[in-house]
Amino acid sequence: MAKITGTFLDEISHDIPSANWGPQDWARDFRAMKETGIDTVIIIRSAYRRAATFDSEAIKKSVGSILPVPVDLLDLFLSLAEENGMDLFFGTYDSGEYWMSGNYRKEVDINKAFTEEAVNKYGHRKAFKGWYMCHEIDTYNDKIMKVYRELGRHLKELKDMPILISPFIHGKKQFSEDPTNLSEHEKQWDRIFAEITDCVDIVAFQDGHVDFHELHDYLAVNSKLAKKYGITSWVNVETFDRDMPIKFMPLPWPAMLHKIQAAQRAKVDKLITFEFSHFLSPNSIYPAAHNLHKRYCEWLAESGISEEALAKGEADPV
Amino acid sequence: MAKITGTFLDEISHDIPSANWGPQDWARDFRAMKETGIDTVIIIRSAYRRAATFDSEAIKKSVGSILPVPVDLLDLFLSLAEENGMDLFFGTYDSGEYWMSGNYRKEVDINKAFTEEAVNKYGHRKAFKGWYMCHEIDTYNDKIMKVYRELGRHLKELKDMPILISPFIHGKKQFSEDPTNLSEHEKQWDRIFAEITDCVDIVAFQDGHVDFHELHDYLAVNSKLAKKYGITSWVNVETFDRDMPIKFMPLPWPAMLHKIQAAQRAKVDKLITFEFSHFLSPNSIYPAAHNLHKRYCEWLAESGISEEALAKGEADPV
Amino acid sequence: MAKITGTFLDEISHDIPSANWGPQDWARDFRAMKETGIDTVIIIRSAYRRAATFDSEAIKKSVGSILPVPVDLLDLFLSLAEENGMDLFFGTYDSGEYWMSGNYRKEVDINKAFTEEAVNKYGHRKAFKGWYMCHEIDTYNDKIMKVYRELGRHLKELKDMPILISPFIHGKKQFSEDPTNLSEHEKQWDRIFAEITDCVDIVAFQDGHVDFHELHDYLAVNSKLAKKYGITSWVNVETFDRDMPIKFMPLPWPAMLHKIQAAQRAKVDKLITFEFSHFLSPNSIYPAAHNLHKRYCEWLAESGISEEALAKGEADPV
Repeated sequence: MAKITGTFLDEISHDIPSANWGPQDWARDFRAMKETGIDTVIIIRSAYRRAATFDSEAIKKSVGSILPVPVDLLDLFLSLAEENGMDLFFGTYDSGEYWMSGNYRKEVDINKAFTEEAVNKYGHRKAFKGWYMCHEIDTYNDKIMKVYRELGRHLKELKDMPILISPFIHGKKQFSEDPTNLSEHEKQWDRIFAEITDCVDIVAFQDGHVDFHELHDYLAVNSKLAKKYGITSWVNVETFDRDMPIKFMPLPWPAMLHKIQAAQRAKVDKLITFEFSHFLSPNSIYPAAHNLHKRYCEWLAESGISEEALAKGEADPV
Repeated sequence: MAKITGTFLDEISHDIPSANWGPQDWARDFRAMKETGIDTVIIIRSAYRRAATFDSEAIKKSVGSILPVPVDLLDLFLSLAEENGMDLFFGTYDSGEYWMSGNYRKEVDINKAFTEEAVNKYGHRKAFKGWYMCHEIDTYNDKIMKVYRELGRHLKELKDMPILISPFIHGKKQFSEDPTNLSEHEKQWDRIFAEITDCVDIVAFQDGHVDFHELHDYLAVNSKLAKKYGITSWVNVETFDRDMPIKFMPLPWPAMLHKIQAAQRAKVDKLITFEFSHFLSPNSIYPAAHNLHKRYCEWLAESGISEEALAKGEADPV
Repeated sequence: MAKITGTFLDEISHDIPSANWGPQDWARDFRAMKETGIDTVIIIRSAYRRAATFDSEAIKKSVGSILPVPVDLLDLFLSLAEENGMDLFFGTYDSGEYWMSGNYRKEVDINKAFTEEAVNKYGHRKAFKGWYMCHEIDTYNDKIMKVYRELGRHLKELKDMPILISPFIHGKKQFSEDPTNLSEHEKQWDRIFAEITDCVDIVAFQDGHVDFHELHDYLAVNSKLAKKYGITSWVNVETFDRDMPIKFMPLPWPAMLHKIQAAQRAKVDKLITFEFSHFLSPNSIYPAAHNLHKRYCEWLAESGISEEALAKGEADPV
């Protein structure tokens, strides 16, 4: 049986509205995560444009000023991860600007300073267990490859921890005009994997860009390539709905179940989700997420995974 | 006084996010429907693309695979309709593909197999009381006319029950460039009604595509044409708001009241809505729907319709 | 310390979905406003297209028919303002049509009749303390200047009360192609202020169209120009998020805090918001607004403003 054991944390957000949770709300949601079987949290961006999880001197120096940081979210998330026995992956900085205009040099330089500052301040924390490089690609992109390689080496030197990326498939749900077919996808990602094998440890493909019936085949290719290059293969089971006019609401349970089963058949190493707190949480600002959580937990129970086992991390591997 | 006595059920959805309700949630909402005066439920699509209300062999055979069906929704909706003394209309299959590309032959063939399967499995159920042909038109369309005629005849042979369609007006809210004026609307629909009189029993026009002040005139034309061709005239009082950037949220009560009154003056036979569970229910995932339900129920009470009468179906006709 | 002491009321809405509140819901929300420090409410439009806060003969005469008015909202809002010791600004009529097509004459004429009717019916009410001219501009526009001048004079003659407008900045968040830079903004608004000094008393710029780090500079220019022309300078601290795909959800607290601080440094006279009931209220249909309210109130408390002082209107000026 496959279950979701990791989630992104998306408070420094690009396109998901803030719930405006305070520390007590986050504490409650981390407990809900643990009870649902989550053992890994991934900050999707520890800073984005002028917003940051902590009052970063590096980001201020680079962009001039940042929004107020009423609560140090990085400290909070580390503390809550520690209380709940979870590993935390630190997401890098996304300027929202430099890498999109081809200035990968600047994007890397800010990130070097930012991650050094983060390690200096938080590197000793018990839950600080991984890096997440937040720049997403779908096909070969030489600029971002340079970011991955140079930033990846820097991160390993700073603190030798697993490095995760979460790319997407150039699929028809986002690129209806020119979706990448399966063989072209394989060709592109064979080339990418060959070049990142020394700076990326884990690849968690997003699963929402292709049609439901195509998904397994793409995930199987991804698993095969990951195995070929010695990379760990996770899947990012998106729990939001890409098919509705409202961008974005929680996914219907049948679609989520289908995607879990597709990942299971593709024999991936771990399932994570983007993301628990808005789309799969009993505490979400969206009532449909409360219900998705109920449907998912009912299914876990029917599948023989007890809440106790989930909370202890004793559930079967995928 | 006019009241709404029917609602669509939109769980196999095209553009409305799922609430992820389980059987108990649906049971609660059917009770709320009954208390609000609903005696008729219409499944807007019993299957759509690769999603289905039941684990249909016909759809699987046609499209290869479908999403998991954790709960047989058709069985559930029939049972709840029976418990609450309601009639259920079975919505046909929408491929989302063939009829849009002009392949009406394929759309009809899948639907023949699908509806045969449905009648074989569920045709004996007490609440199975009508057909709903889900393909929507706004003006004369010879491809869809063929679907209506061929599929309509097939449905009547399978099980002789009333056949409903719910077309829309080619109005300025959706077609600001080239809305159809009243006389052109009448001309188009005179031609359509003439051709569907032997395969469609009830026409429930959607009421949300024209400006509020134009609505009554269009509905009056529709009623007049329906009478001319011996077709029953319902109105689909849309309870969602087409005028807001968020597609879609519950309608403001003054607009709903206006549309109910416009339908009443046009002397239609019955009011239904798209749809209760998201937009007019005390159980909706949208809090504004809880309030719309309160405003509507207050108005029913002021208008002299008791809850008891509503629940017993004894309220006055329109 | 800066706090928000005014809010728009947006029930006759252009782009924010109705909560479908009844009188008791509004009463509860006015109490929440008062407890949060609100002493001024501004009806953003007392009528819009065919919707109106009261059953206006002037609007009916002009456009033929209006939507039902199940509750006289103007009377309700005046009563609740009186109960809670607030001043109410009456928003003018927005045809949504004439002024956009350049027919400013018609827009002014309807508004003259509409405001005369309002004064005849409600002018004696204690809370009726100001006018809000609802037509928004971002740069010099000779048509709207004529509306401001002619309508402004008319309003002063009808009832001599402060006249408020709430313009916006032609900034990059809405006009990414051709945003107005700071010096061009100053030039345009110097010209505008010079021409409206005898018909506008208060200008409350919307604060959501420029990047966060640019905001203070624009607000400082606005304050300087207002001072130059003897106009009172408020800021409309938007509590909704312009940066998300869902248009619109509550703003993240760090962004709200940043904007309050930017306004404070610009030494404006008062902060108002668009708007409390959807985006900053503990009663909002959006749960994230409940949390934004909590974060804001925690900050008020930390800043030494007691609830009692807020409710009594004794909090320090900006």
